[in-house]
Amino acid sequence: MWDRNSLVSVTQLSRSDIEEILSVASSFVREPRELCKGKILANIFFEPSTRTEKSFQSAMYRLGGQVLTHKDAGSSREKGETKEDTIRILAGYADIAVIRDDEEGQIMRYAALAGVPAINAGDGSNEHPTQSLLDAFTIMQEHGRLENLRIAFLGDLKYGRTVHSLMKVLSLFPGNEMYSITPSSLTLPAEMRFIEAGHYDVENMEKALNEIKPDVVYCTRVQKERLKGEKGSYIMHREILEALPTTCRVLHPLPRSNEINADMDSDPRVIPFKQARNGVPVRMAVISMMLKAKKELE
Amino acid sequence: MWDRNSLVSVTQLSRSDIEEILSVASSFVREPRELCKGKILANIFFEPSTRTEKSFQSAMYRLGGQVLTHKDAGSSREKGETKEDTIRILAGYADIAVIRDDEEGQIMRYAALAGVPAINAGDGSNEHPTQSLLDAFTIMQEHGRLENLRIAFLGDLKYGRTVHSLMKVLSLFPGNEMYSITPSSLTLPAEMRFIEAGHYDVENMEKALNEIKPDVVYCTRVQKERLKGEKGSYIMHREILEALPTTCRVLHPLPRSNEINADMDSDPRVIPFKQARNGVPVRMAVISMMLKAKKELE
Amino acid sequence: MWDRNSLVSVTQLSRSDIEEILSVASSFVREPRELCKGKILANIFFEPSTRTEKSFQSAMYRLGGQVLTHKDAGSSREKGETKEDTIRILAGYADIAVIRDDEEGQIMRYAALAGVPAINAGDGSNEHPTQSLLDAFTIMQEHGRLENLRIAFLGDLKYGRTVHSLMKVLSLFPGNEMYSITPSSLTLPAEMRFIEAGHYDVENMEKALNEIKPDVVYCTRVQKERLKGEKGSYIMHREILEALPTTCRVLHPLPRSNEINADMDSDPRVIPFKQARNGVPVRMAVISMMLKAKKELE
Repeated sequence: MWDRNSLVSVTQLSRSDIEEILSVASSFVREPRELCKGKILANIFFEPSTRTEKSFQSAMYRLGGQVLTHKDAGSSREKGETKEDTIRILAGYADIAVIRDDEEGQIMRYAALAGVPAINAGDGSNEHPTQSLLDAFTIMQEHGRLENLRIAFLGDLKYGRTVHSLMKVLSLFPGNEMYSITPSSLTLPAEMRFIEAGHYDVENMEKALNEIKPDVVYCTRVQKERLKGEKGSYIMHREILEALPTTCRVLHPLPRSNEINADMDSDPRVIPFKQARNGVPVRMAVISMMLKAKKELE
Repeated sequence: MWDRNSLVSVTQLSRSDIEEILSVASSFVREPRELCKGKILANIFFEPSTRTEKSFQSAMYRLGGQVLTHKDAGSSREKGETKEDTIRILAGYADIAVIRDDEEGQIMRYAALAGVPAINAGDGSNEHPTQSLLDAFTIMQEHGRLENLRIAFLGDLKYGRTVHSLMKVLSLFPGNEMYSITPSSLTLPAEMRFIEAGHYDVENMEKALNEIKPDVVYCTRVQKERLKGEKGSYIMHREILEALPTTCRVLHPLPRSNEINADMDSDPRVIPFKQARNGVPVRMAVISMMLKAKKELE
Repeated sequence: MWDRNSLVSVTQLSRSDIEEILSVASSFVREPRELCKGKILANIFFEPSTRTEKSFQSAMYRLGGQVLTHKDAGSSREKGETKEDTIRILAGYADIAVIRDDEEGQIMRYAALAGVPAINAGDGSNEHPTQSLLDAFTIMQEHGRLENLRIAFLGDLKYGRTVHSLMKVLSLFPGNEMYSITPSSLTLPAEMRFIEAGHYDVENMEKALNEIKPDVVYCTRVQKERLKGEKGSYIMHREILEALPTTCRVLHPLPRSNEINADMDSDPRVIPFKQARNGVPVRMAVISMMLKAKKELE
């Protein structure tokens, strides 16, 4: 069971941990409660990420707490301070730490140094557990369940490792069928293929979606520099959108390039902004659960 | 009547709307009240403006609320996100949005996108309604009335369009006489001349002020690049100041160049810092009225 | 006695003022109290300093208050606004001001302009009174007394003028013996020598510490550019550390270079992070005392 002292990877969470987090998040949507009054969250960003940073900040405010934000382009690093020292100092002024790193795989070590509960807010292209949780929460809110769903993942599934986390979360629930629709150079890595119910090339996106009849389409951004000349970007044209089942929901973690044009935002199936807003109750749940756990252990 | 869902321009406000805002602001000077506890204001600045940003932040704090600040020189825009997406995301984490833009005329559209009440904190050289309201509030506090006043506007009245807003506000009240004292290349535009009781060239500032005997002198900054070689800047020398009526008040929206030297700040007629502080109760009034209106409509 | 309207230098404080501040700080360690609810602190930094800025912010949050942060690399200075105007504006939105300057000796004048109580958070290499107070508080917490102590100061005692403040604080208490261990080019300036019980060259650090048997070792950072080619940096090797008395405490104001390696952080004698955390209750004490004093005087 999750020890609640750190949230570095979704693999720390069992199915019932995830169900509890989503249930607490759901209670905050119905009624926010100031459970963290007098507490301080340190938002430590070694890489910029407006959405994630502001979403954690809003979550802590909704819980009645306060936020110290440190974006590292500044004074201390220039003086040659290590990330480790920065984290220890800032976490020492706070009750819980949120850490975003520009490198992979160091966060577990940082979390141990912090001396307070610590949340991974993205370590390079590695894990970003609260993003996967808010994605799962959004699916739950829209479909009323996290099982027996047909989900199509669209775009870069090679480097988009945060998507892998969502896939792992969904694989904990029975009956989910996950499909990938990608450029040929950006398919799922070998070790993740077991999760795949089927694969299509992005050139055949329309046909693929017609066949899959997905409950959820999860779009990701394809970064040009990863395509090496290949034509692999995709655009969800109005015709493609309208062919989707009316109960289908199209998710996108944002920021978007032109995968989903703004003129489709009014379609009730396209919900990236609703999804973004869901980050607040989900992070409220994680923060309040981790602060409570800490107190009980003391 | 003002719908309280947006404040983009002073032209949305009737005389009685303005009177209500100033009256609420006045009540906050006597006694601040935490009317916005648990609420979050998103301060979204696509152009820097320290005074305006901090004044809105202080106002929200005085109301017991919280503030998310986004200054856009950062992560998201670099990734190519549109302003529209940024606004939708950030406003989605908040209950009310304050937007400062570096372009003219887009704010009404942005306000509609925000999904929460939205306030224009300046769109380029166009509107900046809370500045005009705090100017009016300052005159009200100092003179006890907003009518039957003689006001001299000094400096750039061509590009200083926020001054036009103050003129429009004052023209809603009877008996006000507005004079302009400007370089010849920076006079009021043709469509605003109807408001002018008289015009003087800035070269004759001293004589002009002697003739006008103003209740209020409103100074604006003349930016060199707008003068095209003409000698048009002005300095309120001590002799000029001392010739003004003792009840006259000299206002300046700040930041100032050398229009009013710091050695005149001790003169009780010179009140730009008092004026700046008045931004807090006025913005408290606007924010609390817009958040209350929203609630009633829900 | 300290008038509590400004804290610019430790020389404003008597022994009993210091004892009162440390006693109030100590009470906040036992139980934080929201004594500054509804109050706003303006954190005005004309020079970056992450630790100091965040420590003041955390302190004000723990007191239930709010914080406006202005880091000056931005809008206003570019428009040519003076520091004086910036301070008057921002302090006008707040109840207490914290000012960090990149120049020496202007803070007393700035404090007078602010119109609210003002705290010096470092003016260049001159004073930084709350740093000295938190150093003294740390010694008090660790040894239970501020008198009859043997303290070894290590590193740059020429330019490290904040260390001079700590020395002055300790000299107010009886029986303290202060030793300096420095490179030959970075010894105490002549006017401070009266405070010195003895001096050693940093080349003989190990021998010096063996002879002094210090209760406290206060390390400072030696900046290479100040050594002019001389070999003067020092590293507290494990052997040196282990030869210190077990009750000795090693302090460092951070950020550190390699004076104390991270692999010694687990030694209970090495406490720079504990020391940093002590900045919060000490600043809570100073802020709450200054805000209370202000209220009583009104």
